[in-house]
Formats: sequence, C-alpha cells, structure tokens
Amino acid sequence: MSWSDQLALHTDQAGALTCAYMTPAHRAVAAQLDAWMRESGFDEVRHDAIGNVIGVYRADPAVARPRIVSTGSHYDTVRDGGKYDGRLGILLPMAIVADLHARDQRLPYDFEVVAFAEEEGLRFGSTFLGSSAYIGRFDETVLDKTDADGITMRAAIANAGLDPARSAHCATDVDRIKHYFEVHIEQGPVLLDSGLPLGVVTAINGGVRRILTLTGLASHAGTTPMAMRHDAACAAAEIILYVEQRCASVPALVGTVGTLQVVNGSVNVVPGVCRLSLDLRAPEDGMRDAALADIEARIAEICQRRGVRCETEEVMRKTASACAPGERALWAKAIAAQGAPVYELPSGAGHDAMMVGQATSMSMLFVRCGNGGISHNPLEIITIEDAQLAAQATQAFMLELAAA
Amino acid sequence: MSWSDQLALHTDQAGALTCAYMTPAHRAVAAQLDAWMRESGFDEVRHDAIGNVIGVYRADPAVARPRIVSTGSHYDTVRDGGKYDGRLGILLPMAIVADLHARDQRLPYDFEVVAFAEEEGLRFGSTFLGSSAYIGRFDETVLDKTDADGITMRAAIANAGLDPARSAHCATDVDRIKHYFEVHIEQGPVLLDSGLPLGVVTAINGGVRRILTLTGLASHAGTTPMAMRHDAACAAAEIILYVEQRCASVPALVGTVGTLQVVNGSVNVVPGVCRLSLDLRAPEDGMRDAALADIEARIAEICQRRGVRCETEEVMRKTASACAPGERALWAKAIAAQGAPVYELPSGAGHDAMMVGQATSMSMLFVRCGNGGISHNPLEIITIEDAQLAAQATQAFMLELAAA
Repeated sequence: MSWSDQLALHTDQAGALTCAYMTPAHRAVAAQLDAWMRESGFDEVRHDAIGNVIGVYRADPAVARPRIVSTGSHYDTVRDGGKYDGRLGILLPMAIVADLHARDQRLPYDFEVVAFAEEEGLRFGSTFLGSSAYIGRFDETVLDKTDADGITMRAAIANAGLDPARSAHCATDVDRIKHYFEVHIEQGPVLLDSGLPLGVVTAINGGVRRILTLTGLASHAGTTPMAMRHDAACAAAEIILYVEQRCASVPALVGTVGTLQVVNGSVNVVPGVCRLSLDLRAPEDGMRDAALADIEARIAEICQRRGVRCETEEVMRKTASACAPGERALWAKAIAAQGAPVYELPSGAGHDAMMVGQATSMSMLFVRCGNGGISHNPLEIITIEDAQLAAQATQAFMLELAAA
Repeated sequence: MSWSDQLALHTDQAGALTCAYMTPAHRAVAAQLDAWMRESGFDEVRHDAIGNVIGVYRADPAVARPRIVSTGSHYDTVRDGGKYDGRLGILLPMAIVADLHARDQRLPYDFEVVAFAEEEGLRFGSTFLGSSAYIGRFDETVLDKTDADGITMRAAIANAGLDPARSAHCATDVDRIKHYFEVHIEQGPVLLDSGLPLGVVTAINGGVRRILTLTGLASHAGTTPMAMRHDAACAAAEIILYVEQRCASVPALVGTVGTLQVVNGSVNVVPGVCRLSLDLRAPEDGMRDAALADIEARIAEICQRRGVRCETEEVMRKTASACAPGERALWAKAIAAQGAPVYELPSGAGHDAMMVGQATSMSMLFVRCGNGGISHNPLEIITIEDAQLAAQATQAFMLELAAA
C-alpha cells in the first residue's frame, strides 16, 4: 500500500495521477520499480526496449530446466487515474517475493514479475504495448504513431534512452512459460456489492460494438396522429429496453446503449432519425453471438412494425479470453485456504492477461474495489485488509501451482 | 387555384416560396390581394397599420344594423413553404364573394374577408401579429423586436409606408362580429388517409411542453452488471414508450418526444444523464392534463425503480380553443348538402382562429392535404376538386349562418 502511494507521486499532471507512456514520470516509476525489485531480493531485473521492467526470482537450483511462472500488470495510467489499477498486480507479487526471499524460500519455477510499460493507450492510442512485446507480438507499425504534440512513439522511446529498433525483440522465453496470472482490482461493483474481498475471473469478456441509425419519417408533432407515425425515437426506445431485458436474462452478459441522439430533433417534430450505439460483452463468444442474433431479430421486427429503416455499422469485435480451468480451481483452493468465500465472475474490462493469454494459459484474481466500484478515477480505493488477503491467497496459489 | 399560383411568384428567396413580414414580396402580395378583392366586387378594401388587408362585402341594405361575419387567414409563409397554407383561407372566400357579386346576391350580414399580414413568426419570432391586431389585442412591445439584420419591426412597418404608431388601433368593430370562421388546409395526413376531402374542426389543440433531465449514474459498460445499473437512457426509453402508449389510447391526444440525447455519452459508458423533450397536445385541456398526470406518475415510478432522478422544466402551456358547437353543426349540414361525408377532427397546429376566437365564437373547415399530408414545405398540395367542394360547402355554410 505504501509502494502504491509512493508511485502515485510520479505524475505528468500536478494534482492528479497521470502516467503516460515514456514521460519523465513514467521513467521515474520504472526506475523506482527496478530499485524496489532489487531490494526485494529478485535475482535479476531487466528492462526491455519497450520499457517493461522484469524481475526474475530464480527457481530452486535443484530443479533442472525450470519453467517460468509469470505475473504482472501495467504501470501506466489513464488521465487522472487511480493508484491501484495495474500497479497492484506488480507490487503485490513483488511483496510476495520479498517475503519468500526473507525466508530464503525458492519455488520450483523461475518467477517473473513483469511491470508492463503500457496498457491504457493514453498517449498514442495503441493499447497493450508492454504485454504484446513481452510475448513477441509487438506491432512495429505503431512506432510511427504520434502523440498530441506530434512526437512519434519511436522518438519518445529513443528520448527515454531505449532502443525502438529492438521493440520486436523483447519477448521472454515464451516456450518456457508454464502459466501467466494477473492480480487486478475489479474496476466494478460486483465484489463490493456481494460483500466479498476476492473473486476468481472466469474469462475476460469478448465484445461487439455497433452504431445503429434508425430512419423513420419526421412529421408535425401536432397534426400527425399517434397511429400514423414512423417515430425513430420510439423504435430506439424499444431496442434499448430489449437490449436491457435480453442481457439481464443471462448472468455475466452485459449490453449497453451508451450514445443516443435524435438527429436534428426539435420539440415539435416527430423524430425522423435516431442514432444509437450498442456494446455487448460476454465471457463466451457464443453467449454474445446468441444475444446479438436475438437483438438483430428484435430490431428487424420493431423496424418492420413501425415502418422504420435500420442501418448498422460494426465498429469493433473482440473474442472472449477464457481463464484456464485448472488454475481457476487452484485459485479457488487458495482462497478457501484463507477462510474466504470463493466467488467467480467474468472481467468486463480488458487486461494484459488477455494479450499474454494468446501465448500461454492465464488466470486472474480480482480484488474488491471500494467507493461503489469506481476505477479510472482518483476515487479508486482498496482496503489494506483486502490487499493482505489477496497477497496470502496469491502466495497460496503460487504454492499450489508449484505442487501441480 | 390560379390565384394561389400567382401569389407564390412573389417571394423573398429565388426558387422557393418565402414571404416574410413586410418584405417587398409581402407588400406585393398585399397589393395583389387588394386588386383582386376590388375586381371580385368587395364594396370596400382597407389596409390597417399592421398590414392586414380587409375586404368588406356589405350586407343586404334591407337589413338594419347588420352584424359582421368574418373569415380569413394569413398571407405570410414559413421559409420555403407551401402556397395553400393560410392563403387558401383568404382566396376561397374571395372567390365566393366574386360569385355572389356576379349573381348580385347579398347576405344579411357584412362579410369581412381578412388577409392577415402575419401568423408564422418567421422574421421577428412573434406570431399572430395580424389576427391580434384585428381584434384589438396587438402587443405593442413586439414593435421593438429585431430581425436577423437588426431591423426593428417598427422600422420595417414604417419602411413599408404604414404607421406603426397606429398598430394598437387596427381592430375591426369586434362587438358587431357574429362569428369568425377559417378555411385551412389540414397540414396533416388524417383526411388523406381516411379518403375524405373535408373535415370540421372540433377544437384547436392546447398543449404543454417540458424538458426532462434524467440523472442516473455513469459507469463502466463492461464491469457494471445489468442489475446494478442506474441507466438514464433506459429510463428515458420507458418514458418514451409510455408517452406513446398513453396518447395512442385516446383519439385526438398526441404526445411526442422530439429531442433526446445522452449527455456526454460514450459507447462504453452506461448513460449517466439523458435529456428529452415532451410535447403533449389535446383538443381539451382536461384530456391533456389527465395524460400529463399519468405520465408524471409513471415517470416517478420509473425513476424510483431505477434509482434515477428527474428534473422537469415546463417551457410552454397553451389552452385549447374549442370551436363553436352551433357552427360545427352548420358545417356538418353544409358538407352533407354537397353529398360529402361529414368528419370531425381536432387541429394539432395553431391558426389565426385561435386568436380571433378570444374575442368571438369561431369555427374551422379543414381541406385535405395531399402528398402524405405534408405542409410548411413546397410539396404541399390540394386538388382542384377538393378546393371546389370546399368552396361549395363554405358558401352553403354562409347561407346556413344567414338563416340561423
């Protein structure tokens, strides 16, 4: 908790916590993490070309050809963000290594704690820079992206003393990774509302986003009887409520109409055009696709009945990432061993585990988020008790993993 | 019909019919109406200080102390308007006077046909200038209003050679008026859809307009489960559908949510604030108020259930104007005498009859509007057959009124 407070002092923006990729604050955080990793007893701390800081706590020397268990999260933030988002998943395993090292305890695997340099996309609009580099899937074309001041990512990396030409060569020894796990604040209200400190993540939700444009017929609000209308806003209202009802019928499925507007609307004109967005997320692609199919069918029925036309543009589609069932069971065992209730939930937000999961099996532990579950906000908090419990459960999980 | 075509040649805007108050096109229309009134056999044509052109066809000299029957409508237009809106109600009675005069027929009342100079409010934003002056209720404070070029109404009237200082002294001899009637295109699709050429107006709808601001709680679209949301757009959707359902349950009641927007909405954020308008109109204030009370109760229930707050601002409230029951019956008799079906409907839009009706009894005849009922648009049309039938019915009504 104290490490979180100290890291939050490095910011791009006075009075707020903003730590964008490759800024002086971001470099200061990397240096601080390096120092603390060394103090904590990591055997090796390396920086890759993209800014990831990787601490390695070597396996018991008796183990021949040890595999790697990897964990981590990101140390960049959103603008005016919170001090636990990402960072908890770096600092908590560091504290565990400090404890193991103090007791001179070794694990049967090399334990890598990765502080990913970037996940949020704040400065260059490209997300998962750190985790994609770590598994050797860094997309070099993003080096040409520029920030608000016209500085390229390539120049920003070079200015920080790193070598952007080596960005495609940052991968760890991926074939040796046995498992990747990530500890993260929930960034939502589910655990808080259920009175639970910890949750085992079932999957990182996949999603689809669409923009719908409904076109009815604008007409005089005074002279057009109700039965003769082709009201685009009424069609939108039916769609909104069906999305809500359909998604509420399946646990873990969420659907949101986040933008909504009658185009050129006027108090005394029946709406001719209404535009709205649709965001659907589910821990399984099949669950999402079934909901989408039902919603499409209902939209068609609504539009047919109302004499309204619907144009649809799909702007995003992302596959769900399942957490490894074996490790989910180990998390459950580790949590139960602390005397805490075991609860499973999907992750609605994306995390580095989604990217690393493309190369290896992955799992995640969620820690209760206070203040109504708010995140990406200075009001983001966790309690010291929850942090302690999370650390104990994680250490237990790591021992279970050693035994597995 | 030919008079309508010729008047439409006078416009402020090449390629469209726009005739704003006191422009050269507007003055040319007034002069043309004066000339045609004189040709048609009106005994007197006077211009008042506000630009109304009033043709008087004197009563049978045998009638001692004759009363006045007055009719008319406005000759100004909206921007890019239609050629029958308003003008039909001036030209049709002029044609009747021409016919009476040709057959040397007199009525037992002075018949005044008033071409109201202004009703739409296009240039100065003030409506009903002509009809309010005609009944001696002109509001002199509007003379200080300015148009888009900063010209005051006072200057515009003076520039046209009229005397704005006399604007409060334009009233006809109101105490002598027996009845005012107005012939107008429907400006809606009801008659067209029902296959009916004419309709007797029951009342000019009153209305109420409100702006609602719904405040829920903005939250993460991925991490906030459906059951934990306070979605302002979902609350708005329920309100929109209830307004539609409640208004559809009562003939002649109409309700519209014409503007609708999630404020600062984002595809991936559960809507925190949603703003919408409500426009309710009914031929009786009691009908409107009952609907409003039900809608208010439903909004309260929706907001309570969803944990959403609603702020309401009332921006307009207008009383309904009932048409005189006795004259409605005379219209029915006159229409039936032409072999046409009798149909009654309210007027959703406002008309000069609403203003004149403050000083005397009033009634209205609607004529079928073609092209789906479109008005305030160059596509506004009526058929020559409907115009002929409307003239016959009006002439018959005038004779019924003479006998009554």
